[in-house]
Amino acid sequence: MTTKTLPSQPRKASTVSRWDRETDVVVIGMGAAGASAAIGARTHGAEVLILEAASGAGGTTAMAGGLIYMGGGTPTQQACGFEDDTEEMYKYLMMASGPNADEAKVRLYADGSLEHYQWLIDHGMEFKPEYYASKSTNTPRDEGLIYSGNETCYPFDEHSKAAPRGHKGKVHGEGGGKMVIDKLSEKAIALGVEVEYDARALTAIINDDNEVVGIVSRIDGQERCIKANKGVVLCAGGFIMNPEMVAKYAPRLSLGNIPNGNPNDTGIGIRIGMGVGGSAINMSEGFICLPFYPPASLVEGIMVNGKGQRFINEDCYHGRMGEAILSNPEDKHYLIIDSKNFAALDRPPMGGFKVAEVGETIAELERDLGLTEDTLVNTLEVFNKHAKDGQDPLFHKRTPYLKPLDEPPYAAFDVSLNGGAYFPVFTLGGLNTLPTGEVLSEDDQIIKGLYAAGRNACGLPRCGATYSSGMSIGDATFFGKLAGKSAAQIEQ
Amino acid sequence: MTTKTLPSQPRKASTVSRWDRETDVVVIGMGAAGASAAIGARTHGAEVLILEAASGAGGTTAMAGGLIYMGGGTPTQQACGFEDDTEEMYKYLMMASGPNADEAKVRLYADGSLEHYQWLIDHGMEFKPEYYASKSTNTPRDEGLIYSGNETCYPFDEHSKAAPRGHKGKVHGEGGGKMVIDKLSEKAIALGVEVEYDARALTAIINDDNEVVGIVSRIDGQERCIKANKGVVLCAGGFIMNPEMVAKYAPRLSLGNIPNGNPNDTGIGIRIGMGVGGSAINMSEGFICLPFYPPASLVEGIMVNGKGQRFINEDCYHGRMGEAILSNPEDKHYLIIDSKNFAALDRPPMGGFKVAEVGETIAELERDLGLTEDTLVNTLEVFNKHAKDGQDPLFHKRTPYLKPLDEPPYAAFDVSLNGGAYFPVFTLGGLNTLPTGEVLSEDDQIIKGLYAAGRNACGLPRCGATYSSGMSIGDATFFGKLAGKSAAQIEQ
Repeated sequence: MTTKTLPSQPRKASTVSRWDRETDVVVIGMGAAGASAAIGARTHGAEVLILEAASGAGGTTAMAGGLIYMGGGTPTQQACGFEDDTEEMYKYLMMASGPNADEAKVRLYADGSLEHYQWLIDHGMEFKPEYYASKSTNTPRDEGLIYSGNETCYPFDEHSKAAPRGHKGKVHGEGGGKMVIDKLSEKAIALGVEVEYDARALTAIINDDNEVVGIVSRIDGQERCIKANKGVVLCAGGFIMNPEMVAKYAPRLSLGNIPNGNPNDTGIGIRIGMGVGGSAINMSEGFICLPFYPPASLVEGIMVNGKGQRFINEDCYHGRMGEAILSNPEDKHYLIIDSKNFAALDRPPMGGFKVAEVGETIAELERDLGLTEDTLVNTLEVFNKHAKDGQDPLFHKRTPYLKPLDEPPYAAFDVSLNGGAYFPVFTLGGLNTLPTGEVLSEDDQIIKGLYAAGRNACGLPRCGATYSSGMSIGDATFFGKLAGKSAAQIEQ
Repeated sequence: MTTKTLPSQPRKASTVSRWDRETDVVVIGMGAAGASAAIGARTHGAEVLILEAASGAGGTTAMAGGLIYMGGGTPTQQACGFEDDTEEMYKYLMMASGPNADEAKVRLYADGSLEHYQWLIDHGMEFKPEYYASKSTNTPRDEGLIYSGNETCYPFDEHSKAAPRGHKGKVHGEGGGKMVIDKLSEKAIALGVEVEYDARALTAIINDDNEVVGIVSRIDGQERCIKANKGVVLCAGGFIMNPEMVAKYAPRLSLGNIPNGNPNDTGIGIRIGMGVGGSAINMSEGFICLPFYPPASLVEGIMVNGKGQRFINEDCYHGRMGEAILSNPEDKHYLIIDSKNFAALDRPPMGGFKVAEVGETIAELERDLGLTEDTLVNTLEVFNKHAKDGQDPLFHKRTPYLKPLDEPPYAAFDVSLNGGAYFPVFTLGGLNTLPTGEVLSEDDQIIKGLYAAGRNACGLPRCGATYSSGMSIGDATFFGKLAGKSAAQIEQ
């Protein structure tokens, strides 16, 4: 029995002998959500204090590539020659949020996307009006726009008109997340938001009506009681760095081998919320991916399981691929390529990619992989027959990645869960909130004084199989801003 | 917002103006768990009152075929010539309980199986020492013993020594569950257990220390407050008859088309427990099956998806098959047979089985089903090549059901989720309990005065993909008995 999985029991205000500090709004965490919440609250008149467990701003966003999912015809989209439409973005996001989508949040997010783009610009972000056309997990240089999900892939392309909506700040390579943090935290501080670093939130303080009126934090090794006259906004990240909590709530995710988070993603915000009766939802869901591109040329390969069967359209987003592999965890999985793409043997995708076998013919490869005779051979024969004509009747892989694999020799990468390839993983469960950020109890009542955003809330992204890059930072900034505003505007 | 998914808020004893009735132990529900709990409490000296929502005993057990999972060398197993061993049963049950297995419960259940068998005999059950050898969902006549799970199937057979452990009372056909209820309820009443029928449990009554001290029940249209000096045992069944609760907690199960329960399986017991802080676990899990046998001859067929691919060893238990189909819900699924088994065209399995197509050759069948050319053809070719030699290198189907399908014509039954076949479904989530039946809170503290068993608890069966018939009634009677005993023995 560990306390690391438990709701954090709140403290009664009546037992607080001394308030060490007092403000209007306390924000827990200074990642993308926390910085946005602080700005949202401050610009609506509140005094704001951020408590950040680390020694600087950042959270997991600072480690991320930094894509932000925006559309409906942003200036960047327009400058790159793409038409987009709020309704098409809404339709796509309803699929991308998955079967548990919160329609009200998706609606608000799609309708507010252009305004949010401008808000980010107003807060220092800049997006270079250049589109990166190749399939990749991020733009490699400082290009501002990329397809970041399944927009052009079956079955998504049949339900909404595709447009690239992954926006990255004007910075080289993977620095996009750091730029979001730098700009927003700079702005927050300029607006007069106070920040206490190395300040770990422990639990909520409640009054006799069960309303959240403050927070207990450990600062300089001492417990401090901080009064929040308007509310507490939980923005302390997901729980992928808390293995006990993952085992309890999302055991499947334990199979991922690269926890994708910062060390403070321990779920404390969620547990603080649960301690005062907040309902944690979607807790079993998560994101797991197999970043098998770039190089985009590998998308021309076929993915097969240990029975030599294809199981997915290989041009799908890498998170959809990861989820498909996770759903058949004990099987082997291989990415098969032909000699056209053997350059990748010398320069494979990042992340533990290993060549399992090379064969002069597909039959030889099949044998060397230990597959049953004629399984991979038959699979490739059927695939090639249709790929030649630009068809994939089985899984609907699309051009330009649909090409026959007809130039031997062949090679197989081992992309099994236990095959060495990296499977980054993070959680998608959190507190049930209204779009305003107000936290709800199990019986859908608002818990007064408590707000959540980012991965402390269950927001826009809710399903690994349908996720798109940019949905997390998009969600964190958009709903963080709103949560801060809600807290600031509450009548005391 | 509906109240049908919410924890049932308890009533404070201090607000109860009059106790309408008083006893030692109140048992909610008179199915297998409730009758066993009542007997367990009564035989340990307690006064017992059962509140049953229906007008008679039964619960869902009375509708069930009535298999009880027991082993380790029961007299019935021995009389039928089977060796079994407690350790082998334990190992099998750890797999059958699934990845979320409660080791303490499995251990206790396996170790106590012979004693429980004798307890059932002592309480009026009789098992005819006759083994039914064919693959079936139950014994067709009054045979007492059958293989009721995946014991002989890959991969289970590689981890424990198989033995048939499905015991059915000596009664014709599907009457086994009714017999369990008749015998146990008769015994309970003979022992002096009182029963109030048409009595719906509404919520718990708690004292100022949050201990459960009674129950509010609607009887004759009136709310009655009943004092339980030693405890309340929740045995009110699962929640498959509460679509809102299924949607909230186990949305996948909504795809099943035959809710397998009685009308009072509304989850009220679980919600009463949650209302006093009980932790509900495993709530997303359930059992779904495709009863595609009997006739056992159909197990000789091959199951394919809409890509013409096999996906499972077809000799597996029908629940494992149902779960496999549920995990790929949008695809088509077909059971393919050859003319050797065309008798089944005239007498298909129970439950909505429809012949999709008949083809003179497998290529014709493939075309008529709209499958991509050479997919089903290749699948069958690979299957037949190895089946001739008694091998299934891909999915490890076992003899005697592993036979080539080499006698055209061929036929396909449509066993897609939406193809007309029945997919019975029930829930496997419930309150977290100790093996004693004591209900635990989110932070693993015992909630005094509260016990649960049957599908109000999360017990032995926890996973649809690994379930075996007999685990539910086995669990309900075994842990029901214990929960009643625990309540009776508590110091007031």
